[in-house]
Amino acid sequence: MHGSNPLSLANSVDTALRARARQVIPGGLWGHLNAASLPEGYPQFFARGEGCRVVDVDGREFIDFMCSWGPIVLGHHHPAVEAAARDQAARGDTLNGPAPVLVDLAELMVGMIPHADWCLFEKNGGDATTAAVTIARAGTGRRKLLVARGSYHGAVPWCSPSLAGVTAEDRAHIILYDYNDVASVEAAVDAAGGDLAAILVTAFRHDMARALDLPDPVFARRLRELCDAAGAALIVDDVRAGFRLHLGGSWETIGVRPDLSAFSKAIANGYPLGAIAGGERWREAATKIFTTGSFWCAAVPMAAALATLTELKRIDGPAVMARMGQRLRDGLARLAARHGVAISQSGPPQMPLVLFDDDAGFAKGSAFCSAALKAGAYFHPRHNMFLSCAHTEADIDTALEAADAGFAAVARMG
Amino acid sequence: MHGSNPLSLANSVDTALRARARQVIPGGLWGHLNAASLPEGYPQFFARGEGCRVVDVDGREFIDFMCSWGPIVLGHHHPAVEAAARDQAARGDTLNGPAPVLVDLAELMVGMIPHADWCLFEKNGGDATTAAVTIARAGTGRRKLLVARGSYHGAVPWCSPSLAGVTAEDRAHIILYDYNDVASVEAAVDAAGGDLAAILVTAFRHDMARALDLPDPVFARRLRELCDAAGAALIVDDVRAGFRLHLGGSWETIGVRPDLSAFSKAIANGYPLGAIAGGERWREAATKIFTTGSFWCAAVPMAAALATLTELKRIDGPAVMARMGQRLRDGLARLAARHGVAISQSGPPQMPLVLFDDDAGFAKGSAFCSAALKAGAYFHPRHNMFLSCAHTEADIDTALEAADAGFAAVARMG
Repeated sequence: MHGSNPLSLANSVDTALRARARQVIPGGLWGHLNAASLPEGYPQFFARGEGCRVVDVDGREFIDFMCSWGPIVLGHHHPAVEAAARDQAARGDTLNGPAPVLVDLAELMVGMIPHADWCLFEKNGGDATTAAVTIARAGTGRRKLLVARGSYHGAVPWCSPSLAGVTAEDRAHIILYDYNDVASVEAAVDAAGGDLAAILVTAFRHDMARALDLPDPVFARRLRELCDAAGAALIVDDVRAGFRLHLGGSWETIGVRPDLSAFSKAIANGYPLGAIAGGERWREAATKIFTTGSFWCAAVPMAAALATLTELKRIDGPAVMARMGQRLRDGLARLAARHGVAISQSGPPQMPLVLFDDDAGFAKGSAFCSAALKAGAYFHPRHNMFLSCAHTEADIDTALEAADAGFAAVARMG
Repeated sequence: MHGSNPLSLANSVDTALRARARQVIPGGLWGHLNAASLPEGYPQFFARGEGCRVVDVDGREFIDFMCSWGPIVLGHHHPAVEAAARDQAARGDTLNGPAPVLVDLAELMVGMIPHADWCLFEKNGGDATTAAVTIARAGTGRRKLLVARGSYHGAVPWCSPSLAGVTAEDRAHIILYDYNDVASVEAAVDAAGGDLAAILVTAFRHDMARALDLPDPVFARRLRELCDAAGAALIVDDVRAGFRLHLGGSWETIGVRPDLSAFSKAIANGYPLGAIAGGERWREAATKIFTTGSFWCAAVPMAAALATLTELKRIDGPAVMARMGQRLRDGLARLAARHGVAISQSGPPQMPLVLFDDDAGFAKGSAFCSAALKAGAYFHPRHNMFLSCAHTEADIDTALEAADAGFAAVARMG
């Protein structure tokens, strides 16, 4: 499995941990961080992170472009975030009620997100999308939910990408449309009739293993109109993109304001937190539903979020990441051309995806990633990547040297 | 509202924070930690915790018997837990994959919980109960789920105590039975016919605002037989009780082993973590379902859990809490008798509930709790309470002095 890896299979700490994990964890690991389907050489277990770099359990260091699949937005161990978390932890974390930082954070978010008059906090992105849908249903007294075909909204039965253990009723009131396809949404709204509770839409189209599509403003505006006409909620699932594209919610970039937004991932630079931000019209419904969890008032992740969002605002984080993402994108385009390898790059620069042309089964993408990994850069062959504010020009340039090795490997495939 | 409280309303930090919170958080706070329905004098916001004591934002200190509604099992800032968390945090928390501590923790749990051959980790108790049900359905290819009337299993649509925003289909395959009532379960199994996926049951009956019932061993054994006969999963929801009654899962106390257990709350002494533990028969199903979250591989809560469970084992935490809970119970009984006030105490000593006889609307319970609060002990008038291993005999005795003031207040009601 690690044939071309400088480590010998027998001596790899990662291999030994995987073997132990297989005994006590089904499939070795649940969910999206399971490295079993990643190309040769990817580690499963990590020893540490610092800034934009991660180190695996075998001591290999990588410039990282997954950022823990989104959460790390300022870089690991950002001093302002760590200081805020440490300070709050010294006082208390999970208590009989929230700490004052809850109010500070909610006020910051309401001030930062134009469509928000209130917030709720949770632990998972899926908590936020689930509660947003529940609020929309409570606020409309209706049931139908429009969801784009192939979009990811969490790993619970109503939206999980797997149907194992899911019943038909879990999805009884979902009507599918196609992202950026106005006619398909209009047809779905018609199908919902008087029972339309909400249209749910990701900030951009980031379905697995296909090029990313930014939202067409015509499409986005039409969703707003359709929801307004029906008195339904427009819910932007901003879990993956939130705070990387715009601090006011990702659709501020196209001037369309949702009723409810679901956030998580980047909100607290790796500390576990999710959030819903909503408008006045939905406040009463948000009061009526019952949504809670044992750790939802934990103060340390809120202190981390307050520091993260404050720092992102101070440095204009989305612009920083856009600049670094564009530098990566330009460099990759230059290198690909030099090696005579055709690639297509898509998505916002802060969350780029690189796919190779004519690459059935992702053989080229895998060869690229494995070679780049060996040379010290952690890319992903199929999933959108993530920039952080810790990536410097020098880091991007170093990573491009690793990418050069990756393109060379693809070029050798002929 | 704080009329009899030593604080003046105008000068209360808590009152000011509540007013700000009402602007930016629907209803001032979501869920179970909302203090709006608690009697006079309860704080909503907390400044800090230390051991078994919490301090509110106005500087009032209480000996705490809610333990953050369960999570705090060793006391706030337990040195071994904090050291483990700090050490892991210095290396990394949310990374591109788990840290080695994941395997250490899963191995510890599999060694500690007799019915467990594997574990999965999540963030919420509701993540664990939801995934356990999904695993049961995936493993049986069936749909029906038996749930006890009034039991709490989380705050997501299939099990939330509120129906606001919930559709009929969210609960389509749930059949209700009555806790400890064998005939009602047998009838529910009959109703499920060949479609029985699982029986879900809390570790003991801890429904809100009524006396707690321990599981009748005859009932528990019958659930085991019924599941075995049907090839269905017996799922114990041990989210609330887990690791307080027994380190091998709460039903070890009555010698009945479930197929799947859901844990959370006390697992990591306040750090956000949930877990499912399951037997070999369900491993493949657990591999087939898709369950994941952005922070589910975060290493710090796992390091905290490893330290928490290790310490609970070292000191026999359940026995420590049982001893202190019994001391509290005995003292309360003595004081109640002295004041001529009739109470009924129920539940395991580690998670006691005190209810007053003839107490419609909880007027007596509220008067008791408000007076005790003023005297420095934080009890709950309607919900089971929680002991921690940080409660000493001296703490219990000090709290009993506060309870004495509470009983006096009830006695004065005539």
